Amino acid sequence: MNYKLILSTVLKVIKIEAVLMLLPLITALIYKEDCFYSFLITMVVAFTIAHVVQKFIKPGEFYFYAKDGLITVSLTWIAVSLVGAVPFVLSGEIPSFIDAFFETVSGFTTTGASILNDVESMSKGTLMWRSFSHFIGGMGVLVFIMAITRKTTDRPIHILRAEMPGPIVSKLVPRSKDTAKILYLIYMGLTSILVVLLLFGGMDLFESLTHAFGAAGTGGFGIKNNSIAGYSPYIQWVLAIGMLVFGINFNLFYLILLKKIGVIFKSSELRTYVLIVISAVALITFNIYPLYNNFSSAIRSATFQTSSIMTTTGYATADFNAWPNLSKIILFTLMFIGGCAGSTAGGLKVSRIVIALKKIKAELKKLLYPNTVSVVKLDGEKIDEGVTSGVSTYMSIYFICFVILTVLISFNGLSFETTVSSVSACFNNIGPGFDLVGPTSNYSVYNGFSKIVLSIAMLLGRLEIYPLLLLLMPTTWKKK
Amino acid sequence: MNYKLILSTVLKVIKIEAVLMLLPLITALIYKEDCFYSFLITMVVAFTIAHVVQKFIKPGEFYFYAKDGLITVSLTWIAVSLVGAVPFVLSGEIPSFIDAFFETVSGFTTTGASILNDVESMSKGTLMWRSFSHFIGGMGVLVFIMAITRKTTDRPIHILRAEMPGPIVSKLVPRSKDTAKILYLIYMGLTSILVVLLLFGGMDLFESLTHAFGAAGTGGFGIKNNSIAGYSPYIQWVLAIGMLVFGINFNLFYLILLKKIGVIFKSSELRTYVLIVISAVALITFNIYPLYNNFSSAIRSATFQTSSIMTTTGYATADFNAWPNLSKIILFTLMFIGGCAGSTAGGLKVSRIVIALKKIKAELKKLLYPNTVSVVKLDGEKIDEGVTSGVSTYMSIYFICFVILTVLISFNGLSFETTVSSVSACFNNIGPGFDLVGPTSNYSVYNGFSKIVLSIAMLLGRLEIYPLLLLLMPTTWKKK
Repeated sequence: MNYKLILSTVLKVIKIEAVLMLLPLITALIYKEDCFYSFLITMVVAFTIAHVVQKFIKPGEFYFYAKDGLITVSLTWIAVSLVGAVPFVLSGEIPSFIDAFFETVSGFTTTGASILNDVESMSKGTLMWRSFSHFIGGMGVLVFIMAITRKTTDRPIHILRAEMPGPIVSKLVPRSKDTAKILYLIYMGLTSILVVLLLFGGMDLFESLTHAFGAAGTGGFGIKNNSIAGYSPYIQWVLAIGMLVFGINFNLFYLILLKKIGVIFKSSELRTYVLIVISAVALITFNIYPLYNNFSSAIRSATFQTSSIMTTTGYATADFNAWPNLSKIILFTLMFIGGCAGSTAGGLKVSRIVIALKKIKAELKKLLYPNTVSVVKLDGEKIDEGVTSGVSTYMSIYFICFVILTVLISFNGLSFETTVSSVSACFNNIGPGFDLVGPTSNYSVYNGFSKIVLSIAMLLGRLEIYPLLLLLMPTTWKKK
Repeated sequence: MNYKLILSTVLKVIKIEAVLMLLPLITALIYKEDCFYSFLITMVVAFTIAHVVQKFIKPGEFYFYAKDGLITVSLTWIAVSLVGAVPFVLSGEIPSFIDAFFETVSGFTTTGASILNDVESMSKGTLMWRSFSHFIGGMGVLVFIMAITRKTTDRPIHILRAEMPGPIVSKLVPRSKDTAKILYLIYMGLTSILVVLLLFGGMDLFESLTHAFGAAGTGGFGIKNNSIAGYSPYIQWVLAIGMLVFGINFNLFYLILLKKIGVIFKSSELRTYVLIVISAVALITFNIYPLYNNFSSAIRSATFQTSSIMTTTGYATADFNAWPNLSKIILFTLMFIGGCAGSTAGGLKVSRIVIALKKIKAELKKLLYPNTVSVVKLDGEKIDEGVTSGVSTYMSIYFICFVILTVLISFNGLSFETTVSSVSACFNNIGPGFDLVGPTSNYSVYNGFSKIVLSIAMLLGRLEIYPLLLLLMPTTWKKK
């Protein structure tokens, strides 16, 4: 393993993170807040140390093996979260380091689960850093690719594979670096549109930026104790639709830019995504109507919560924990489905569900006619046997991880519903769950051990399990 | 499709069922109960109709295609449950047919979920029929094979494949019929030993037969309102170990008979099964000790409930719904794992978990070294790629079914914990769940629609999904 190159890459990303802290730093400066110094100290110290250590390492050859790429990704996410937690502790706004680490992992993994009882008492600089971490984490893959491909040519496809959510990694253009740039531009463009729309709704720049970051990264950290409930119906609709947009595969936006609009209608993942959203909204609206006695409120609430949970964002305009059980179970189901592959959303991803269903259909056909060969097709193209089998294996490991995490969290002794929904909400990068971790509560009820387990759950979910598991495998560290 | 042969087979099995009703009939006769007439009428009418209709059908060729076999299995289970429900309704002991159907499906699928509020008020004949249905259902596959192979030669391997729980179907001896006979003898032998051991503990013949049937089929219908809680520690230990024995792959008992004891230690499924049981017992004993303040009670309770849930039986000696959350989550996890393949137990089966874990390890290795070929081995033998991929696909379809069933049950509006655990307890053929369907309660809280959905869940679980799904596929009914 190329230890030097791995370490050098991690340090490079930490330097980028330090630079990105300029945004909360400026925010703190504008609002004349004390947390300014916490960010300044963290930036200077982290950048200096990373820079100095980097100077001492000579990575030698720039070749990344698959293994190196995956290990780099895991270590980078952990390192970035450790450094990102420092300003919270320094400013005294989150005194416990475990709490600060939980909050930062939750930010970068775009989960949005919080341990804060009173968000409104936080400084604006800190709130900006929380929300900005969603934005950084949402496109994390691209930041890292950009960081690495400066000097190398086209090697980091392994990293793309590791961080790109979904079963199939497709490059839009031949060079990874260019693909990254295009996706990055789309991401920034869509976020800018959202910021403008929110400004139109009467939000100030700080509010619109933080909320747009949370929606773009499908994160969900809010700046109000009641999340989005206090904002106007216009804002709620803008965010509801905004989140849905960021739950779509970014490749499709690229195709729109190329005016290949027809391909969009051919995408069975998009069709399924839209179908699930519409069905869920219809069922929930029908189910919660008696609570609101007003169709427009009911459908707005249903759409917002469906969009928020399905895209694994986690904003809330209603206390869905108090909703009837049918709505809760639908939301619980959406948690696992998640958004489309190649979006910033978490969960299993719609395309995996589509492929799994097609594979099941093929298996059933094989039972009926044992001698025929059945082929799984997606959008008219034959899917490789390796991909379908990979999807099924991913689903198995996904549920096994879910069970292990749930058992570990149940040591904390909270209720069945709290335990199961906490793991689901963290593992799928959503944020709020049910019962004690519902949208009106937070994760401060957990002890330190559980917070660490849930942080690992968030990382496992965001990196799609494998890279993090490799860290624990003895063969990874064996010399060949 | 060979409709005539399918119908003829279903009728043949109904005739066998009618004959098997002799046992509750005799029980009712001994105890001079009115339900005697309900059984007599059902037997005579069902047998006569089945016999007459059968006479009119000339099945023609005796060849079973895979499709025919699977469809026959599904239809037989439904038909047998419909007929088996009749005596409950006729005797007036379960007036509603939906309730009686639920109870019968629960019996034959060896689930043990009940809608009865007061089991002790039931007649002995009816209780015997409930428990006997577990015994019949537990080895259902063999009854059917015997029924079919009388005239044909060795065709019904498709049925064996459909009803035999687990990922790999192995025949002990070349002819299916002989394999069936051997397994059947083992089943009867083990049950007889259990009956004798229970008689030693002071049970009368009626009690020991019903309880042995429930344990042998891993069913769980009791004859007391508090299940096994009122029996002596000796009885509780005998049943706890008895259930564990019936959760082991029956092929292993055959190997013991052949004095190939060494193979048992090589079985990684058995090793994993024992390991899971020991770990669960240790954790739960530790967790519930404060409730009992007595080590021998705590370990007995922990062992009994672990054994009962893991083997998907569902007997109870303690109200585990009132246990701390850690113990509940462990039991909930065991529900999904279930017993060994080739046993009478339900759930995913230990061997599937073992194969899935090995497949995941292979996938991780492939990530590390993309150019190496990794082979999945079980007990020293290479596992076919088709089997590992089949296991993963089964796990996907399993969880998709679980989600759909949960959403359907949540329309009933009961609590999150009740809903999720009901589906889990029925789908995995266990019986009691948590909260409103905990071991001290029952399924009478559900409405008719939910009872039908849960009946389907039990059938899906017992037949391992595919045969029942085929009934719903349009291609199944298309003429070729």
